[in-house]
Amino acid sequence: MRTLLSALCCIAIVQSTASIRNKMAALITGDWFAESEVMWPGQRFSLKVKKDGVLHRSRSKFQDILVFQSETYGKVLVLDGVIQLTERDEFAYQEMIAHLPLFAHAEPKRVCIVGGGDGGVLREVARHSCVEVIDMCEIDEQVVAVAKEHFSDSTATSFDDPRLTLVHADAAAYLKAIVDGKGDSSDPAIAAALKRRSSQWPGYDVIIVDSSDPVGPAETLFAPAFYDSMKAALAPNGIVCTQGECLWLHLPLIAKVVTACRATFPSVEYAYTTVPTYPSGQIGFVLCSLDDGERALIRPTRAPTTSLQKLLRYYNPDVHAASFILPEFAARELKKSR
Amino acid sequence: MRTLLSALCCIAIVQSTASIRNKMAALITGDWFAESEVMWPGQRFSLKVKKDGVLHRSRSKFQDILVFQSETYGKVLVLDGVIQLTERDEFAYQEMIAHLPLFAHAEPKRVCIVGGGDGGVLREVARHSCVEVIDMCEIDEQVVAVAKEHFSDSTATSFDDPRLTLVHADAAAYLKAIVDGKGDSSDPAIAAALKRRSSQWPGYDVIIVDSSDPVGPAETLFAPAFYDSMKAALAPNGIVCTQGECLWLHLPLIAKVVTACRATFPSVEYAYTTVPTYPSGQIGFVLCSLDDGERALIRPTRAPTTSLQKLLRYYNPDVHAASFILPEFAARELKKSR
Repeated sequence: MRTLLSALCCIAIVQSTASIRNKMAALITGDWFAESEVMWPGQRFSLKVKKDGVLHRSRSKFQDILVFQSETYGKVLVLDGVIQLTERDEFAYQEMIAHLPLFAHAEPKRVCIVGGGDGGVLREVARHSCVEVIDMCEIDEQVVAVAKEHFSDSTATSFDDPRLTLVHADAAAYLKAIVDGKGDSSDPAIAAALKRRSSQWPGYDVIIVDSSDPVGPAETLFAPAFYDSMKAALAPNGIVCTQGECLWLHLPLIAKVVTACRATFPSVEYAYTTVPTYPSGQIGFVLCSLDDGERALIRPTRAPTTSLQKLLRYYNPDVHAASFILPEFAARELKKSR
Repeated sequence: MRTLLSALCCIAIVQSTASIRNKMAALITGDWFAESEVMWPGQRFSLKVKKDGVLHRSRSKFQDILVFQSETYGKVLVLDGVIQLTERDEFAYQEMIAHLPLFAHAEPKRVCIVGGGDGGVLREVARHSCVEVIDMCEIDEQVVAVAKEHFSDSTATSFDDPRLTLVHADAAAYLKAIVDGKGDSSDPAIAAALKRRSSQWPGYDVIIVDSSDPVGPAETLFAPAFYDSMKAALAPNGIVCTQGECLWLHLPLIAKVVTACRATFPSVEYAYTTVPTYPSGQIGFVLCSLDDGERALIRPTRAPTTSLQKLLRYYNPDVHAASFILPEFAARELKKSR
């Protein structure tokens, strides 16, 4: 799963939620699903739906949820008209958004996942045996339920992990409560989660933001205050990795995000991965670290064990380093804020 | 411009030319152009056409040619229903297919371009001041004419370069005549080109294959004999770079191609670039070198001058090296033939 626009980017989005939501209604014409193109006008990606292939269609408290069986990409999860994952290529996103920060960190023990209701990021985080605590804050319980029903063979494989505490709450409120150290949050889910937290809580080593559409339920995650909360919620040398949109579609916005992050974090880098079913075929990540060492994010400090590497289909240590090498047009733009 | 399937890949394509051509008819419905998806079933990319935006539509001796003004990607060239270039992202393809072999070579003086009728590869090759001879063999004169009319500000900028000899002929016959050293080719265009060739011709330093659709006019380029001809037409340490399709769509075929090339050339590598309007958002290149030095292709032996680098929007020396770092699923597959 990924956001439609990255957390910080969306500050620049001024269209009303309602009008975008209307336009975003998933569109299946004949046997083709055509993605909403509101956020990338003038281009449109379509997937062929198998005969009788619509497996789920509902409206949760927060968003429209659609699952269909495609002809050539396996099952597809769509939220508010936008493809979140297909079984064929989801690993390229999940592995990279998870393993870039996790292998950049010397010893990640406490990890927070924001969003990620399909379970894909959780699956990847759970593969790190050094991780002791996985807190996941996904606002939409129904997305998790749908993932467990339809994607139990692909992304939703690790919801039983004993290290996991899954909270269905607004992540901005959740992180703020964590930072404030208050167990008396007005949200009972948050209050319950915080009660289990020791007073000696040292902060997260890694926070991964895999939230859904900023014009939908994840709106509150897009205020700058959320980024201050994330920074405050990190342990020393902690790393944040957020979905960072596509260089080909939103470079001016990405540049603003990176510039803003550089004013806050000692190390900020941008990486990307290729995902055929995402707009323009790729998606990036903004990585921020409290470690100010040169190449703190770019050079992995650990490598997958042989057995873990065998499970991975996109990530390896060479891919890690190469994912930060950007096309000249983008490198030039993002260099300006260094 | 790029082939629909790479030269070698197409050996495996068994559909009849006629049936594919029929399906490939460019499809503009309402104000959207939808690309033919014959070669990548189940997925479809569409571009919005500007009002009254169809600028050219014809059938040459070889193929259907369409040019339209898109809403968000500038002018678009379509051959037989498949997007060949858009003004917004063409540089990612042209720069990489040209500069990867040209900067891998220590001093490319003699360059052959196969196909490339839109002029984009020629534009990039012409930027190398060390290049003395540019021979270009494009079978379809009409594509060049259309490019000169509609893309004179973007790709078709260098057809007046004094180093250029442009031959409209079948490139397989052309290269065979070059190798055989025969000036008496039955094709007068080839015979004329060869007459200008000195008997001391040392071979090409770089051959770039940017041919069009293998089920169309470029069919003859897809026999293994063409690859033997290319090898024979190279000078010592010469390099061939051919469009090599998309890792996400045609990996088994790509693996076969790379394996076949490794039986013939001492150094064979695969690189890729991102191009939003190509199927699945990226396209790769098979590079073969007569130089057996380790990293002969991966490490550029020269770097762009400062003034050239300023003109480039995708390529730089870091991008060169990184483009050979493949996602684990692909790296694993292509390692098998090492």
